[in-house]
Amino acid sequence: MGYTELDQLAINTIRVLAVDATSKAVSGHPGAPMGMAPVSHVLFNKFLNFNPQNPDWVNRDRFVLSNGHGCMLQYALLHLFGYKVTLDDLKAFRQLDSITPGHPEAHDTPGVEVTTGPLGQGFSNAVGLAIAQAQAAGTFNKPGYNLFNNYTYTFFGDGCAMEGIASEAASMAGHLKLGNLIAIYDDNHISIDGDTKCAFTEDVTKRFEAYGWHTLWVKDGDNDLEAIEAAIREAQSVTDKPTMIRLTTTIGFGSKLQGTGGVHGNPLKADDAEGVKQRFGFDPKQSFIVPQQVYDLYNKRAAHGAAKEQEWNQLFQKYATEYKAEHADLARRLAGKLPEGWEKNLPVYQPTDPAVASRKLSEAVLEKIHSVVPELLSGSADLTGSNNTRWKNAVDFQPPEYGIGEWSGRYLRYGVREHAMAAVMNGLAAYGLHIPAGGTFLNFVSYAAGAVRLSALSRVRVIHIATHDSIGLGEDGPTHQPIETLAHFRALPNCMVWRPADGNETSAAYYSALTSKHTPSILALTRQNLPQLEHSTIESALKGAYPVVENADATITLISTGSEVSICIDAATYLKEKHGVIARVVSVPCFEVFDAQDKDYKLKVLPDGIPVLSVEALTTMGWERYSHEQFGLNRFGASGPYKEVYKKFEFTPEGISKRALATIDFYKGFPVRSPINRAFQQIL
Amino acid sequence: MGYTELDQLAINTIRVLAVDATSKAVSGHPGAPMGMAPVSHVLFNKFLNFNPQNPDWVNRDRFVLSNGHGCMLQYALLHLFGYKVTLDDLKAFRQLDSITPGHPEAHDTPGVEVTTGPLGQGFSNAVGLAIAQAQAAGTFNKPGYNLFNNYTYTFFGDGCAMEGIASEAASMAGHLKLGNLIAIYDDNHISIDGDTKCAFTEDVTKRFEAYGWHTLWVKDGDNDLEAIEAAIREAQSVTDKPTMIRLTTTIGFGSKLQGTGGVHGNPLKADDAEGVKQRFGFDPKQSFIVPQQVYDLYNKRAAHGAAKEQEWNQLFQKYATEYKAEHADLARRLAGKLPEGWEKNLPVYQPTDPAVASRKLSEAVLEKIHSVVPELLSGSADLTGSNNTRWKNAVDFQPPEYGIGEWSGRYLRYGVREHAMAAVMNGLAAYGLHIPAGGTFLNFVSYAAGAVRLSALSRVRVIHIATHDSIGLGEDGPTHQPIETLAHFRALPNCMVWRPADGNETSAAYYSALTSKHTPSILALTRQNLPQLEHSTIESALKGAYPVVENADATITLISTGSEVSICIDAATYLKEKHGVIARVVSVPCFEVFDAQDKDYKLKVLPDGIPVLSVEALTTMGWERYSHEQFGLNRFGASGPYKEVYKKFEFTPEGISKRALATIDFYKGFPVRSPINRAFQQIL
Repeated sequence: MGYTELDQLAINTIRVLAVDATSKAVSGHPGAPMGMAPVSHVLFNKFLNFNPQNPDWVNRDRFVLSNGHGCMLQYALLHLFGYKVTLDDLKAFRQLDSITPGHPEAHDTPGVEVTTGPLGQGFSNAVGLAIAQAQAAGTFNKPGYNLFNNYTYTFFGDGCAMEGIASEAASMAGHLKLGNLIAIYDDNHISIDGDTKCAFTEDVTKRFEAYGWHTLWVKDGDNDLEAIEAAIREAQSVTDKPTMIRLTTTIGFGSKLQGTGGVHGNPLKADDAEGVKQRFGFDPKQSFIVPQQVYDLYNKRAAHGAAKEQEWNQLFQKYATEYKAEHADLARRLAGKLPEGWEKNLPVYQPTDPAVASRKLSEAVLEKIHSVVPELLSGSADLTGSNNTRWKNAVDFQPPEYGIGEWSGRYLRYGVREHAMAAVMNGLAAYGLHIPAGGTFLNFVSYAAGAVRLSALSRVRVIHIATHDSIGLGEDGPTHQPIETLAHFRALPNCMVWRPADGNETSAAYYSALTSKHTPSILALTRQNLPQLEHSTIESALKGAYPVVENADATITLISTGSEVSICIDAATYLKEKHGVIARVVSVPCFEVFDAQDKDYKLKVLPDGIPVLSVEALTTMGWERYSHEQFGLNRFGASGPYKEVYKKFEFTPEGISKRALATIDFYKGFPVRSPINRAFQQIL
Repeated sequence: MGYTELDQLAINTIRVLAVDATSKAVSGHPGAPMGMAPVSHVLFNKFLNFNPQNPDWVNRDRFVLSNGHGCMLQYALLHLFGYKVTLDDLKAFRQLDSITPGHPEAHDTPGVEVTTGPLGQGFSNAVGLAIAQAQAAGTFNKPGYNLFNNYTYTFFGDGCAMEGIASEAASMAGHLKLGNLIAIYDDNHISIDGDTKCAFTEDVTKRFEAYGWHTLWVKDGDNDLEAIEAAIREAQSVTDKPTMIRLTTTIGFGSKLQGTGGVHGNPLKADDAEGVKQRFGFDPKQSFIVPQQVYDLYNKRAAHGAAKEQEWNQLFQKYATEYKAEHADLARRLAGKLPEGWEKNLPVYQPTDPAVASRKLSEAVLEKIHSVVPELLSGSADLTGSNNTRWKNAVDFQPPEYGIGEWSGRYLRYGVREHAMAAVMNGLAAYGLHIPAGGTFLNFVSYAAGAVRLSALSRVRVIHIATHDSIGLGEDGPTHQPIETLAHFRALPNCMVWRPADGNETSAAYYSALTSKHTPSILALTRQNLPQLEHSTIESALKGAYPVVENADATITLISTGSEVSICIDAATYLKEKHGVIARVVSVPCFEVFDAQDKDYKLKVLPDGIPVLSVEALTTMGWERYSHEQFGLNRFGASGPYKEVYKKFEFTPEGISKRALATIDFYKGFPVRSPINRAFQQIL
């Protein structure tokens, strides 16, 4: 309360910086920054606790700009409050290799928590950040040690409000009663097609009430700073529900085109930009001007945050004396380290062990490691029994009043919300203390494609437990049988796709997923049983590909993944017995890991001189990189008992042998180079 | 009203058939059919107008089982009402090559309108079916000629209610005031993880009210047939809003495990199944029993529907005399034919024509053909100005009371709802009278992956206008720049991905998309300008690939798509001038169409003897099928002016030439076979 001209000056400074940066870039979105400058000022200067000198302080308040196209708002704030974002960085807005790209990228810019822009994602990440806070508080807070009490704030616009992913996340947040989550809805009635009345006339407030949120309305978000402050304060005081503040604003406030779509996604015209500056008391001929009083004001808030961090550090030191084990655990997690020797708990299998579905093998890993890796949070999009994602004595993450779980619970009931699940996991990972793993059928990871892409782009460690990974799921049929799915995610940069063939490979997949700090992993797992292979080891599998049947006299290499590896091994036997042909067999549980090996190793796995035939009961797309000929399924599957489906599509020793013979024949008399040999290197 | 024992018998017959079929299959979902048998009976026997002898009658009421896992409900109904689904078909439930697969597939089973199972899709298809009805009514109905007045009914469960896609579609339906849409929510409190209280405690009714729906609650959906009937009747009477009927039911009604997750996805145990039959007055030792009275009852309803169709046919004949042009147009559309000679309106370009972005070329096509192809409905997910999807004098499809459109409007404002847009388009196409086209950025077609997959699987003609198709979009940066997207959809069976290089190729893409009656198409279009190629023609482009620079003395083939084709042509010039190397250049606007050509043609395009280098500013995955070496982008892009981004990643004549020389060098001394030559045929 008690707002002065200095507050208004700070607000207008933000607006003018957004005008200048978009003008200089001749590209970008001035409208949202101009409309949301007042709420940003109030939020950042009165509420947010953060230390620009240490953007990683774990108990900082989290801020997520879900309407990421308005990122000049965020960049301006980061600069003004003293993060390592300079005025020159603002001048390089949307330029090559700057730290101020067209949409906020978490790994590029200090102070950006998550990568946003694709609509609805940031909102859902915020739900994940809030869950992470609640889980950390439930785990580590003790009487007198309120170590985790930060809030998560997110701004979102009409675009985010329309996206299904945000609906899913909002429903989940309401169910979970996340009182630490405050979402501010920029109700400006404008989206790219113009007035929202052309497509979006629902009652957003009522919808959030239906989800179980507390709701508030600030009717004049352009001017009424007191009302904004009061609303945020009320939101903070509501601890048993997330709060949605509907903030009615004027997009592009100050521009001649304010309140229209004209200011959404294009820089202001020169005269309009000058007019804005004049209106706000800035020199219309100068650009990127920041009054010193504004720096001074915001420096004070930054200093307040730095002091808060100091307090926290002292509290944490004291915690060490009273809660030694918890302190050590938290310190380790803050350092980004896994527990010493955790990997010794990974199950190891012998060829004589029984055949088991890899979804069950995955469950066995979780059962063995969950107690030694306390940062692991599992969960499922309502397929717990099918995904085998829950260890026996798991406690659900739930508000305790439901009587079905605890805040410290480590098993998340995501509901049938695959897209939100993936985005919530991105938020969980971004908080910095957890490793989230979430299950659904592989085919429905596609529902989450938008969020999986952002896992990869924003370099977070997230694990997708993707069961029912092929026609091997049988009766559910083509609507549930993936064909294109692995090709899709193998084509996604910085995403590891594992398709283990047995128990040791499944353990390797988990080892890789848990130790890849900056890469998400998709574990494609079977519904049907798989035999334990004779030559599999965790170590070999961790090279991405290795021979499971080796023979120096082989005239063909069969390369395969998951459930088809053991059929290839049978095919090798069949080829020898029926045709006197010697085949080697290579298992390649992970393309991306194999790609990272040195060339010598790769050439040992796929040697020159003999052709390679790939076998996978999914699309052949992508397999040409590792093989000369490909056997796969470039059509939709079929509903029926899985053994019959496999037979129909000839994924049998006979079917593979037929194609192996054709391949050998086709390459007879030709010099055969390994597909590992390439003319040039790819840009990475 | 006036329900008798016969009604109860019919209901129990449905339940017992579901028990028998799932038991025989040892697989499937008995719970939903047993719980929803009462509402199905009332709906099918009292309300639905349909003719089992002609499932294609255009004004039939549409029924969509969005909770498609409960498909034994639908199969039982189809059988009992006399569709071409026999008792033997029910006995072959979930067996290979049956017409009763694990989830309903529209092209397999007479009477199944759309392919469902992936949750939320059917609900959203229903919104599309309802829009199609409203648009057809707005277009063809005349005083005295109420040709289109059918309702669309959909059943959906908690799973669908949780999915974001259904939220998007519900919001859209509420905005559009679709009074012809009646959605029945199976409120049984059970999902796969058990009681919905673990993840889903929102107020679904209130949420639908917030969307603008009329809502009703039937508290005893197990027994109160009168209340069910009254609710549906009220829903029919509300013409300015869609209606959601919350129907509280007991999942697996009649089983020992009724009301629990135990009956959701597993057949009943033998003794339980026998108990159910006994309870319902059936012989516990017999299976697949249908009392003749039930057939008789339902035959009467089917006859009622057949009579309705007769009436309609007469009305339509009379329509011919009064509304000749409308009749002819509708008759043509019913016959599934495009207007004679429509394709003559496709723009044709000369090399001297100016460079234009392919999104603008797409707009030019729409501008030219919209009046001759009245079944074409365009639209965008709130990116109209960027997707260039709207012809100049287009009228929006809107309830007239908004004053911004008409029921007969042909431009849809989908809002920022990509997933629902794709699913709504599937429903629009399934109605049978429209060709829907919808725009978003290519990167956000991924948000719609679940629905695009079902376009392909259910074989509907849907067009995705996917602009901003690469790093060429520039400043928006990596969050918006597709990398994996084309590989993903190229790997999807029965989906055509076009990436035209100029105006003639864009026209070809539209020709192909509009004439492919059973295949969806994705048109990947640029933001940036593209020159008109010297040797492009619509005819050549319609072969999927063709040479744009030919030379019998070439030592390398460059193969490329879209914006990179003209850079390859420049590279060919550069190679000749700087290195004396002769290169041919092939444009391949559509893999799928090229694959369908005969081998002779394909070998002319990609001849033996010289290596092929592919060039596309996206992932290289999939290109190995057409080339020996690949130049692409297997990493995320960058934010900056697009020419600088292209330069950074070396998509320049120099960058291409460098790799072409390396490729030639690598293959020197090796016999080079065209990638068209393969050892064996793929299973299709």
